[in-house]
Amino acid sequence: MNEHGNGGPVFEIGVVIPRRAVQEKDESCDCACFLVKEFEKVGFIVERVVGIADEFIKLAAPLETFGRAAAELQIKKRTLIGMDLQFEVEEVEAFVKQPDGSVFSWCERFQCYCHLIYGIVNNSKSVKTLKFDGKEIRWEIGEHLLQKLESENIVKQVFPLHDEKKRKKLLRSWALHWWDLTSQPIDEIYSYYGAKIAIYFAFLGMFTRWLLFPAAFGLTLQLIDFGSLRLVVLPAFFIMVILWAIMFSQFWKRKNSALLARWPISSAVGADQGYKILGSRQASSWQPPMELLKVFESDRAKEKEIFQRHEWLGRLMRFRNDAIIIFSIICLQLPFELAYAHLYEVLGSDIIKFGLTAVYLFAIQYITKIGGKVSVKLIMNENNENTEKRADSLIYKVFGLYFMQTYIGIFYHALLHRNFSTLRQVLIQRLLLSEVLENLLENSLPYLKYSYKKYRVRHKKNEKGEVREKFQFTSRVEKEYLKPSYSASIGEELEDGLFDDFLELALQFGMIMMFACAFPPAFAFAAVNNVMEIRTDALKLLAILRRPVPRAAATVGAWLNIFQFLILMSICTNCALLVWLYDEEGKWKIEPGLAAILIMEHVLLLIKFGFSRFVPEEPAWVRANRAKHTTQAQDICYKKLLRSISGGDKTLEEDKKLE
Amino acid sequence: MNEHGNGGPVFEIGVVIPRRAVQEKDESCDCACFLVKEFEKVGFIVERVVGIADEFIKLAAPLETFGRAAAELQIKKRTLIGMDLQFEVEEVEAFVKQPDGSVFSWCERFQCYCHLIYGIVNNSKSVKTLKFDGKEIRWEIGEHLLQKLESENIVKQVFPLHDEKKRKKLLRSWALHWWDLTSQPIDEIYSYYGAKIAIYFAFLGMFTRWLLFPAAFGLTLQLIDFGSLRLVVLPAFFIMVILWAIMFSQFWKRKNSALLARWPISSAVGADQGYKILGSRQASSWQPPMELLKVFESDRAKEKEIFQRHEWLGRLMRFRNDAIIIFSIICLQLPFELAYAHLYEVLGSDIIKFGLTAVYLFAIQYITKIGGKVSVKLIMNENNENTEKRADSLIYKVFGLYFMQTYIGIFYHALLHRNFSTLRQVLIQRLLLSEVLENLLENSLPYLKYSYKKYRVRHKKNEKGEVREKFQFTSRVEKEYLKPSYSASIGEELEDGLFDDFLELALQFGMIMMFACAFPPAFAFAAVNNVMEIRTDALKLLAILRRPVPRAAATVGAWLNIFQFLILMSICTNCALLVWLYDEEGKWKIEPGLAAILIMEHVLLLIKFGFSRFVPEEPAWVRANRAKHTTQAQDICYKKLLRSISGGDKTLEEDKKLE
Repeated sequence: MNEHGNGGPVFEIGVVIPRRAVQEKDESCDCACFLVKEFEKVGFIVERVVGIADEFIKLAAPLETFGRAAAELQIKKRTLIGMDLQFEVEEVEAFVKQPDGSVFSWCERFQCYCHLIYGIVNNSKSVKTLKFDGKEIRWEIGEHLLQKLESENIVKQVFPLHDEKKRKKLLRSWALHWWDLTSQPIDEIYSYYGAKIAIYFAFLGMFTRWLLFPAAFGLTLQLIDFGSLRLVVLPAFFIMVILWAIMFSQFWKRKNSALLARWPISSAVGADQGYKILGSRQASSWQPPMELLKVFESDRAKEKEIFQRHEWLGRLMRFRNDAIIIFSIICLQLPFELAYAHLYEVLGSDIIKFGLTAVYLFAIQYITKIGGKVSVKLIMNENNENTEKRADSLIYKVFGLYFMQTYIGIFYHALLHRNFSTLRQVLIQRLLLSEVLENLLENSLPYLKYSYKKYRVRHKKNEKGEVREKFQFTSRVEKEYLKPSYSASIGEELEDGLFDDFLELALQFGMIMMFACAFPPAFAFAAVNNVMEIRTDALKLLAILRRPVPRAAATVGAWLNIFQFLILMSICTNCALLVWLYDEEGKWKIEPGLAAILIMEHVLLLIKFGFSRFVPEEPAWVRANRAKHTTQAQDICYKKLLRSISGGDKTLEEDKKLE
Repeated sequence: MNEHGNGGPVFEIGVVIPRRAVQEKDESCDCACFLVKEFEKVGFIVERVVGIADEFIKLAAPLETFGRAAAELQIKKRTLIGMDLQFEVEEVEAFVKQPDGSVFSWCERFQCYCHLIYGIVNNSKSVKTLKFDGKEIRWEIGEHLLQKLESENIVKQVFPLHDEKKRKKLLRSWALHWWDLTSQPIDEIYSYYGAKIAIYFAFLGMFTRWLLFPAAFGLTLQLIDFGSLRLVVLPAFFIMVILWAIMFSQFWKRKNSALLARWPISSAVGADQGYKILGSRQASSWQPPMELLKVFESDRAKEKEIFQRHEWLGRLMRFRNDAIIIFSIICLQLPFELAYAHLYEVLGSDIIKFGLTAVYLFAIQYITKIGGKVSVKLIMNENNENTEKRADSLIYKVFGLYFMQTYIGIFYHALLHRNFSTLRQVLIQRLLLSEVLENLLENSLPYLKYSYKKYRVRHKKNEKGEVREKFQFTSRVEKEYLKPSYSASIGEELEDGLFDDFLELALQFGMIMMFACAFPPAFAFAAVNNVMEIRTDALKLLAILRRPVPRAAATVGAWLNIFQFLILMSICTNCALLVWLYDEEGKWKIEPGLAAILIMEHVLLLIKFGFSRFVPEEPAWVRANRAKHTTQAQDICYKKLLRSISGGDKTLEEDKKLE
């Protein structure tokens, strides 16, 4: 009966309850027992594990339970004929199976778990009194059990569990499969971690594969002395690199849509599903505020106006926020960064330089933290369409911060001082730094956290004076609970650890692209780094961290736009670099008038290509109208359609039997 | 019973048969009588009109006939719930009505007419012998009647007729409504001429309205002397104009999608419907070759590879064609144009200049004709997805020709010789020329053609020695037959008269934008011209030409891309103009190295933004897969859906009755 069809049930969710000092005698009143019973009533398969410091309830669910929950949630799934329809338990045959043969993807399963766990309500006619460690809790009629227990601090956490069997398989076939270089079992990653993480690794893999070509070119440029041809080879390298980057970003889009066609993800739906653990229960991909939709129903004349006002207000709000961020970056961060770069340039002694860098690194930590918090606050005021859009908005803003922080010093050395030796030094430093230090930090920090938590648990027990031999963590679930979760170093509310991974990639891309002419072998550094990055990231996800909450969004999102922006930037910066490289004697003078006109031209070109992002091609009311219509259509006919799809399949099977 | 509900039937199609010398006695054998009977059998309302030189069969159809034809053609129409479903006569209520209250749009009606007229087949079991003017024609079993008669030259033409009532109404409310400036009855234009022409006029109207702002700015710049501020005002004007153009192109896209939401046009379907009169019967919007689709069905493993090969082959073919065109423009046309411009610059005498221009204009006619023919031939080898895509491909190629022809001389004066007075002269000349001459030519040429044809008919009759008084053209249909059709001056096979109209608009846009800094009042010229253009184009369509064959495509198509390309160009050219304007003493020197780097930068930026057009984001097989799936879905459920939509409406009506 189990979905996975491999023996025992697979427990995928863990609920953490503190271990009680006093065991309740009356089992019907004991909170933990009661919770287990309620879970069983809902349809879960439950296993209780008593750990050292906490108690754990592990949950699994058979297909029927998922089916019921999915039908209640009105989850839309892709059917065999390619249309997305609401799930119905009776017509399972009509829906496309996942690559691993199961009906629901991990993301959908997680959504169902959340719905079922947080949907337990007191339906009886009396208030129930529960006891926990001597405390009494009144479960009122109509109250949600889990919310109640969470507010009373009895349920400490609900978190997704690793599936040991699959995890070990992935560990072998993915994380420890070093000799494969860039190839990865993407389909298996998708079914274990969900679309977003699989897309990240597919992106990383393709990027690394593509990197090998400019890496080889860059290395030959460095190693072979071209003599008098040198003047021609460098611009050729520049043009090649830009063309390479342009082609990469376009071919990635193709690859992405090919992946989406392979995985049964409904492209429209799902942008908002299952990201936050606490019931984000908006089903449709684009949800205009409810009051607007009501107006839409009642008054067709007013609809357009109201929708347009809502659309433009939202856009202005976002514009204002972006302006605030950009303004504060330029006015606060830029002088700071420039001051550091200038001091670094001016100072003679290496020791003072080292001290300065330490102070700088310390200060920068605070600045990014503050910047991230401000961005998160600003975004809360925006009416972004869904969580993924909101996350994108945050990504743009925070990337602005990191962009300044990472590159402004390099720009200073490269463009203002024309100091190419310092530039190359800084580039090598940063690339090696990111290669060694970040990978080290990324992997050791979670492990240290985990060790510290383990130590604390032991320590507490010690204080209570229990026997020492018992301290082996026998239960795997407790170990997993102590592992840190996959979270971003900035703005945990809106983004998970993918933010850090993508940020690293984007900063690396900017570094190698924008200064390609100054230091061609950077591509080789990056390629080596990324080949390692694939495996260390995999290892981090599989061995060091908790299983992350799945996200349904199936594109790279804002990051691709950032990559494209970096390509644009690199066209301009490399041209400037070339000018300064060839103009060794400083003879090429640009009159201020000419410079002003050139700057104006570039700004206008930027606006030309940026404006279409600011104003979408389709007014919001047209979009809302269409969305309303299609959902209406699917609501009308989905049952009939489903029957004809799965019915058609059955007749086919019968035909086969007759033969 | 008539669709339009205004008294008599509206005859919309005319079939032309030469007038016979000998009237056949046996009516059952007479070809014309037989044809009329067959038309009546199909369900048409038929009227025969005997003209002076020809005989005409006018056809109208009641709603039932259209309904039957639409169901046979499996036309997809928008239903009340917004989904596009196959038409069914019984469920008329489920479909959205046109703005004028009829069920079918003019484009759909035309498609039905064609289907019915060309679908008459000899279904009887014997060969029929028809007589016409003494000639005997054998109508074989299973043969199409109209094709047979056309090949025998008995049916001379099938053409759409004007609807007198609506035409007169439009003439009053649109063509002769001068004082409205830019506002037009777009919905009525849509229901009379179809989407493509309505979109053209909506575009022209919006463009003209938007033009008023830079026109006012440009005029003030010309009239008021800013003194020392002059140096600041011109760049400000330039920036304003570019921003204006960028915003215009984006807001037009919004307007276009709003129009599509207002008219019940299915956005996906319809790109290929009803353009050519001779049955282009591909129903779906994107039709990969049949053999490919069959492979798709049988072998899912091979599908991707084959589709990808097909996709890339087509793309390479198009790329080769584009390369041929660009190469020949640069190698053949460019020297010719430059030679003319140079001679014009060098020659002193005005008379020789005039002669030179005459020779040039004569030569240019041939060049564009040849260029157009070569382009059409090249396009025939491309496997474009549908006729609209093919038309777009032609537009790009031919616009390349016209671009060179129109602007290269101006570039020569402006950029090479820095001769601003000649530049301004040329601009004024061209703008006035386009304003007066083109409008004159556009309207007088068709009228002259019409008059000549009338004269020829009279002349022939005269030779035959008939009485003179009879020569009044009494029948309106004969007059319409003699009117010229709405055809392009280039490549009649692929484009209709819209090509010329859009070309004029695009060339004007390029002229005013690319040299905005050299001659700001050009915008005012253009605005005045366009206000007139709206009415003269309307007059041309309503009074001078035959009713054009409707086209279903509902966007501006390739022209918007051309507009955006012109905006890009104008950023660069205006910057160059500004440099030369401010650098009066010629002091600003650009080193060749710097110039090379700048040119490289601009080329790379162009590639960055052009590449995404070359490689689409979605592989062809993903697209084909989805298209197959959605049509499959709609085929399964469309009847059920239709019933529930129109059934739902009925119950609503019953509820109202009960109240």
